[in-house]
Amino acid sequence: MKMEKIKTTIGKIETLDKDAMEKAKKRQDFLTKPRESLGVLEDLSIKVAGITGNPMPEIKDKVVITMAADHGVVEEGVSAYPQEVTPQMVYNFLRGSAGINVLARHIGARVVVVDMGVATDIDNSEIVNKKVAYGTKNIVKEPAMARDEGIRSIETGIEVFENLSCVGIVGIGDMGIGNTTPSSAITAAITSKSVGEVTGRGTGIDDERYENKVRVIEKSLEVNNPDPKDPIDVLAKVGGFEIGGMAGVALAAAANRIPVVIDGFISGAAALIAYELEPKMKDFMFASHCSVESGHKVILDHIGLEPLLDLNLRLGEGTGAALGINLIDAGCKILTEMATFESAGVSEKSENQ
Amino acid sequence: MKMEKIKTTIGKIETLDKDAMEKAKKRQDFLTKPRESLGVLEDLSIKVAGITGNPMPEIKDKVVITMAADHGVVEEGVSAYPQEVTPQMVYNFLRGSAGINVLARHIGARVVVVDMGVATDIDNSEIVNKKVAYGTKNIVKEPAMARDEGIRSIETGIEVFENLSCVGIVGIGDMGIGNTTPSSAITAAITSKSVGEVTGRGTGIDDERYENKVRVIEKSLEVNNPDPKDPIDVLAKVGGFEIGGMAGVALAAAANRIPVVIDGFISGAAALIAYELEPKMKDFMFASHCSVESGHKVILDHIGLEPLLDLNLRLGEGTGAALGINLIDAGCKILTEMATFESAGVSEKSENQ
Repeated sequence: MKMEKIKTTIGKIETLDKDAMEKAKKRQDFLTKPRESLGVLEDLSIKVAGITGNPMPEIKDKVVITMAADHGVVEEGVSAYPQEVTPQMVYNFLRGSAGINVLARHIGARVVVVDMGVATDIDNSEIVNKKVAYGTKNIVKEPAMARDEGIRSIETGIEVFENLSCVGIVGIGDMGIGNTTPSSAITAAITSKSVGEVTGRGTGIDDERYENKVRVIEKSLEVNNPDPKDPIDVLAKVGGFEIGGMAGVALAAAANRIPVVIDGFISGAAALIAYELEPKMKDFMFASHCSVESGHKVILDHIGLEPLLDLNLRLGEGTGAALGINLIDAGCKILTEMATFESAGVSEKSENQ
Repeated sequence: MKMEKIKTTIGKIETLDKDAMEKAKKRQDFLTKPRESLGVLEDLSIKVAGITGNPMPEIKDKVVITMAADHGVVEEGVSAYPQEVTPQMVYNFLRGSAGINVLARHIGARVVVVDMGVATDIDNSEIVNKKVAYGTKNIVKEPAMARDEGIRSIETGIEVFENLSCVGIVGIGDMGIGNTTPSSAITAAITSKSVGEVTGRGTGIDDERYENKVRVIEKSLEVNNPDPKDPIDVLAKVGGFEIGGMAGVALAAAANRIPVVIDGFISGAAALIAYELEPKMKDFMFASHCSVESGHKVILDHIGLEPLLDLNLRLGEGTGAALGINLIDAGCKILTEMATFESAGVSEKSENQ
C-alpha cells in the first residue's frame, strides 16, 4: 500500500517562524513584569508564535480529539479492566460525563470522539466512525495489524483533523483497555530501552499481573521483531489503531501550523511515531504532563520535550492535554493582553543593572 | 497593643471535616476512571471538601487579593527597580493591564487591590485603602515597623477578607519593590536557615547586588534580633505591611473555612507567619507553585505543603495563585461533574485485581 497522504502531510511541515518568535519574545520583554518572570508561560507563548507564525497568537477553538480502539493483547490479562469498558467509556464520552468532558468544559474546549478500532460497533450519531478494524490482533501471537492498516490508521487520523473546521489548538487523547501494553512495546522498540524501564501498571495491576505484562511485551517484540528505524513497522506490529490515529492528527496539525498537545503515555507513543516519521514534529508539540507511567518520561526525553505539569495523572482520554492547553492559553493571553512598560507608564529596570 | 482580632480569628480556625473528606474520597473512587488516576486533582478536591465541610464542593466566587506596600530597605540597593514602580504597578492593576489581571480573567476571578503601605497615596477610587504607614523603615537600621503596626497589618488583612462578600476561594498576592528582602529575612529568622539559602535574585539583580542583598539581610537580622518563636516580632522587625496583610487574609479565610492559595515567595512568607501563629493553617492552604526564589521552597518544606506547579514563575501579584486556583477548580469539577461507574453503566475493575 502506498502512503501518499502521509508523505504529502509530512512534506507540508515547515520549521518554526523565527521572525514571529523574535517579535513575541521582544514583546514579552517589554510587558510590565521583570523579564522572564513568568517563566514557562512566556516560553509557551513564544513557541505558539513560532508554530502559528503569528507574533500575537490567541488560542481559540480548542479541540481535544479522543480516539478509541481495542487491543487483542487483553486476552493475555494485561489490564485490570475488561474489554467491554472501551465502548462503555466511549458512550460515557458521548454523554459528556467522563473526565475529559469535565476538563474540556473547564478549559472551553470541544471533544471529538473517534472510533478508530473499537471491538464492537458504537451505536451513536455523535461518534466519528473511522473504525479501521474491530480491534488489533494479539501481539504475543502475531502483528497487531497489517502494514496497510498501520498506514490507514495514520491517514485516518490525518483525515479526522482535516475534516474539522476551526481548530486553534489540538489535544490528543486515547481510550482503549490494554493500550499501555502496545505503548510500552512501541517505546521499547524505538528507544531501545528495556521493557521493564518503559512499563508501568496501567489502570492499576498487582505485582503478578505486572510481571506478566512485562513478559507479554517482551514476547510481542520477539515474535514480531519490529524494525526500530521504521515507525510504521513498529506501529503495525505492536501498536494500536488509536495510536496510529493520534500520530496522524499530530502530523496533520503540524502541517497546518496548529499546536499539538500531548496527553499521557499512549498519546506520547503516538507522538513518538509522529516524531520518528518527521523530527520537525518536536517543534509543533507540547508535553502537557508527565504521567505516572515510566515509559512516558522515556518518550519525552527521547523527543526532547519538557512536561508542563506533574500531577500524578494516569487517566488518559486527553485529560492532561486539556490542562496543558489551559496553560498555553494563559501564556498567550499574557503576551497579548498585558500592558507594556511604555503603555502603562511604568519605570523600567535601573540602567546600571 | 492588644491583638484581640487576631486571637478571635485564630480561635475560630477548626480542623478539617474528616467526614466530608471521606465522602469526597469515596465518590472519587466510584467515578468512571481507575482509582486515583487523576492524582493530585483528586487530592485537591478532597482537601477542599475538608476545608469547606462540603463533600461536593464547587469553586465559585474566586478572588485574588493583591496587597501592595513599600520597603525602606530599598535605599540599600536591594532591588533592580526603583520604588516608584510600586504605585505605578498598583495603577496598572487597577486598569486591569497587569499579569494578575490577565490570569484572573483567564480563571474567572476578581482581583481586589489593597494599599497596605505604599509610600505614596494611590489616587483611585477602586483601591482598597488600608495603608498602615507610608512604607516600612530601613531594616538595616531599625525595625521595619512598631509591634503594634505589625499587629495592625495582620488585623487589617483580616478586615479586608471579612469585608468581602461572596468568597469561595482566595489567592494571596503581593506587590512591593524590594519585598523579597524582608521575605528572606522572615524565612531565615523563622526556619533558622542561613540567609544565603533563602535569598534569591528577586526581580533580577546581578552578582554584586545579590551579595549586597545577602549582607543587608544578615545585618537586618543582627540589628533587630527578631524572636523566631514570636511571628509578630519577626513580622514587625524585618517584615512588611503587605506580608502582614496577606497573613491576616489567610487567617480570616481559614476561620471562615475558605481555601487559601499561596502565590510565590512573598505570599509564602505571609503564609509562614500565619502558620507560625496557628499550625492548623497548613490544612487550609494550598501551595500553587514553587517560585524561582530559593526561600520559597524552604517555606513550603517548613509548613509541609507540596507545590502544584513548577513553571519558573517569579512575578508575584498572585499570578501563580491564579493558576493554582484553576487546578483546584478543575479537581472539584472532576468530583462533582463526572459520572460514577453505576450511573454510566461502566464495568468496574475485575474482582481478582
